[in-house]
Amino acid sequence: MNVLGMKRNIALLTDFGLDDHYVGVMKGTILTINPDVNIIDISHSVAPGNIRQAAFLLMVSIKYFPPKTIFIAVVDPGVGSNRNPLCIQTETFYFVGPDNGVFSYALTNFKSIKAYRITTEKYFLENVSKTFHGRDIFAPVAGHISKDVDVSEFGEQLPVDKLAKLPPLKTKWDAFGNLIGEVIHIDRFGNIVTSLSSRALGLNMHNILKQDLKWQFEIGHTKIRNLSTTYSDVNEGNLVAYIGSSDFLEFAIRNGNAAKEIGAYIGQPICARKVGIYEQFI
Amino acid sequence: MNVLGMKRNIALLTDFGLDDHYVGVMKGTILTINPDVNIIDISHSVAPGNIRQAAFLLMVSIKYFPPKTIFIAVVDPGVGSNRNPLCIQTETFYFVGPDNGVFSYALTNFKSIKAYRITTEKYFLENVSKTFHGRDIFAPVAGHISKDVDVSEFGEQLPVDKLAKLPPLKTKWDAFGNLIGEVIHIDRFGNIVTSLSSRALGLNMHNILKQDLKWQFEIGHTKIRNLSTTYSDVNEGNLVAYIGSSDFLEFAIRNGNAAKEIGAYIGQPICARKVGIYEQFI
Amino acid sequence: MNVLGMKRNIALLTDFGLDDHYVGVMKGTILTINPDVNIIDISHSVAPGNIRQAAFLLMVSIKYFPPKTIFIAVVDPGVGSNRNPLCIQTETFYFVGPDNGVFSYALTNFKSIKAYRITTEKYFLENVSKTFHGRDIFAPVAGHISKDVDVSEFGEQLPVDKLAKLPPLKTKWDAFGNLIGEVIHIDRFGNIVTSLSSRALGLNMHNILKQDLKWQFEIGHTKIRNLSTTYSDVNEGNLVAYIGSSDFLEFAIRNGNAAKEIGAYIGQPICARKVGIYEQFI
Repeated sequence: MNVLGMKRNIALLTDFGLDDHYVGVMKGTILTINPDVNIIDISHSVAPGNIRQAAFLLMVSIKYFPPKTIFIAVVDPGVGSNRNPLCIQTETFYFVGPDNGVFSYALTNFKSIKAYRITTEKYFLENVSKTFHGRDIFAPVAGHISKDVDVSEFGEQLPVDKLAKLPPLKTKWDAFGNLIGEVIHIDRFGNIVTSLSSRALGLNMHNILKQDLKWQFEIGHTKIRNLSTTYSDVNEGNLVAYIGSSDFLEFAIRNGNAAKEIGAYIGQPICARKVGIYEQFI
Repeated sequence: MNVLGMKRNIALLTDFGLDDHYVGVMKGTILTINPDVNIIDISHSVAPGNIRQAAFLLMVSIKYFPPKTIFIAVVDPGVGSNRNPLCIQTETFYFVGPDNGVFSYALTNFKSIKAYRITTEKYFLENVSKTFHGRDIFAPVAGHISKDVDVSEFGEQLPVDKLAKLPPLKTKWDAFGNLIGEVIHIDRFGNIVTSLSSRALGLNMHNILKQDLKWQFEIGHTKIRNLSTTYSDVNEGNLVAYIGSSDFLEFAIRNGNAAKEIGAYIGQPICARKVGIYEQFI
Repeated sequence: MNVLGMKRNIALLTDFGLDDHYVGVMKGTILTINPDVNIIDISHSVAPGNIRQAAFLLMVSIKYFPPKTIFIAVVDPGVGSNRNPLCIQTETFYFVGPDNGVFSYALTNFKSIKAYRITTEKYFLENVSKTFHGRDIFAPVAGHISKDVDVSEFGEQLPVDKLAKLPPLKTKWDAFGNLIGEVIHIDRFGNIVTSLSSRALGLNMHNILKQDLKWQFEIGHTKIRNLSTTYSDVNEGNLVAYIGSSDFLEFAIRNGNAAKEIGAYIGQPICARKVGIYEQFI
């Protein structure tokens, strides 16, 4: 616990999988520095090297964690090259990991962002490897943050606009008045998560009116003729479009696997089209 | 810790898998409410929507957890429909999840069962989604129980006989004196767990007599000519029947994968037959 | 916490997988005995019954854990037979599990090794099963060690030279001056971990000279013409040999899956050959 007696939390997001010992030794490293911290796994199943998938999962997860949580995100194909190791402090959270854009979606939520290039070796494990900075740099730095070491201790500050950024999630209007997005994630149930947020669709999730639901969707050759609110709005085996739990448009098959059925894939374009009053009665 | 200084435990059983961020954000939600609770995963690999498999795993797991453990079980194909969200208090444990039968096997172990329909919104996350009550309702309710909020706070009491129930595990005698069961679970090793408990076979596990072991078994076209006590009672590669660690009859191949070899499947009928003295000497 | 106020840690390594309830009930069992202990997963994905893989993962993991960590390793194909249950105390750590060699690689790091055959039933769960000593014996014994029960309490001491040992990791010079090793592990990324340590290759990892890197390697029909320091030393899609994060020689494809590409397998022989000055200029 820190001086105020509040137990600190470190959340992990990596592409290391759970089969090897990599995540376990990161946790051992953290607990060696601070035995009294909670360590929570977000996911270790990011596709190897898929920085964008990690950035999306991080963005939709952070708000469910306690204030002052330290997020370690290690999807790091450039490990051992000259990409910078980063630690970042915002008004709510801390982030530790490589400067390759993995934090760029999550950071859009904050006003105060201070970023530091990690260079202070006394906070590293001895004999830093060239291939596992998750264990040798990021885990110990996060452990020290959880013991209230100030982020400015880890290295010199970097201007926020110099941090690596990913291309933004696709949301744009085409010439025909269609809103074009893309498949950004496919979950365990085969539910297809798109890049179109409820806001992009003009929905106020706290007060959805019937009128708001007049949308039609296309993915590949498949059309979905309206927006629903949950799976049970359709019969078993039917396709349903709805605003998912992360506040993005999703497509699912009730008690089925939509991604498999449709052949959806990450990056696939999807199209949303608001239905006019005329068309609603066709 | 609660007022008595005993650290509380929350155990999770879901069909969410570990690839997505779903389990991680449930844990973040719990720790935001109570930073000083242990969170233990039972399994997140229940087959999507398989309430019965979850009910079985919960039933055989609970007795190994500390008193006052709060079990969250979320296999919830009806999320967002009008199925009730439940919290249940027994003389030993708490249960939180949907009213779809997932608790019905576990509850057979208790004398005092008080069930409540969860309706008190002040204990929910803000803006409850239609598709993820695990995060928005069940995790926060469990977090509040771990801080000693009384279960009656969450909503009105329901009569226990109105709770959803699954069909019982198959155990019946046929006209020929055979005891008929079914395959209820297949584990990582390919071991085949059946619905026949040691009690159904008339065995006193604390004092097994040689006479007790005179059983023969059939699954598909495969016969097993006796009941053993552990894998090493047979040679490598041979089939063995024994009372497994959850106190149910299991079939395995020593250092092999019985389910794959036999082609066993969940729900497959199995047959047990007590061997008479005459037959023992054939 | 123990009397000195330092929170204790128990690390788990098994072949149980995460799909079943087995790991969860081990954790429940531990927390029933000591609610205030950290439990860390190293891996539960050891190939079923592969003692050697577990021994390797344990060996390369332990040094990243806090002093006094208790390691439970349960890869135990002989469960229920007459193999001994063990608990071991070294100058730094504790080990609990079956006497089948799973600790033999890790133990080479310690000077003081005291081993005990676990026999004191009052520390077991009631009604020990014949098939799940991880839950019924090893988890409770580890829980009691974390509460400062002395290891001599669990049974009589065994001479260390009587403990089961695995054949050592292959490292030998052949008649032609080649150093012969084997593939010992393949990780999630398809990186091929070999049995040749940096020491076997004569490298001082804290001070690698250019001269040290003059090696060539063969695996199957594939040759790698030099030793690099990290992935980014080669172009994307190219093979690279380097000393991995566990201090053993590894082969990888930058942003690719080397094991799949090469068709590598556990136990496959590999060959390392120091390049002379003459050959360097060919």
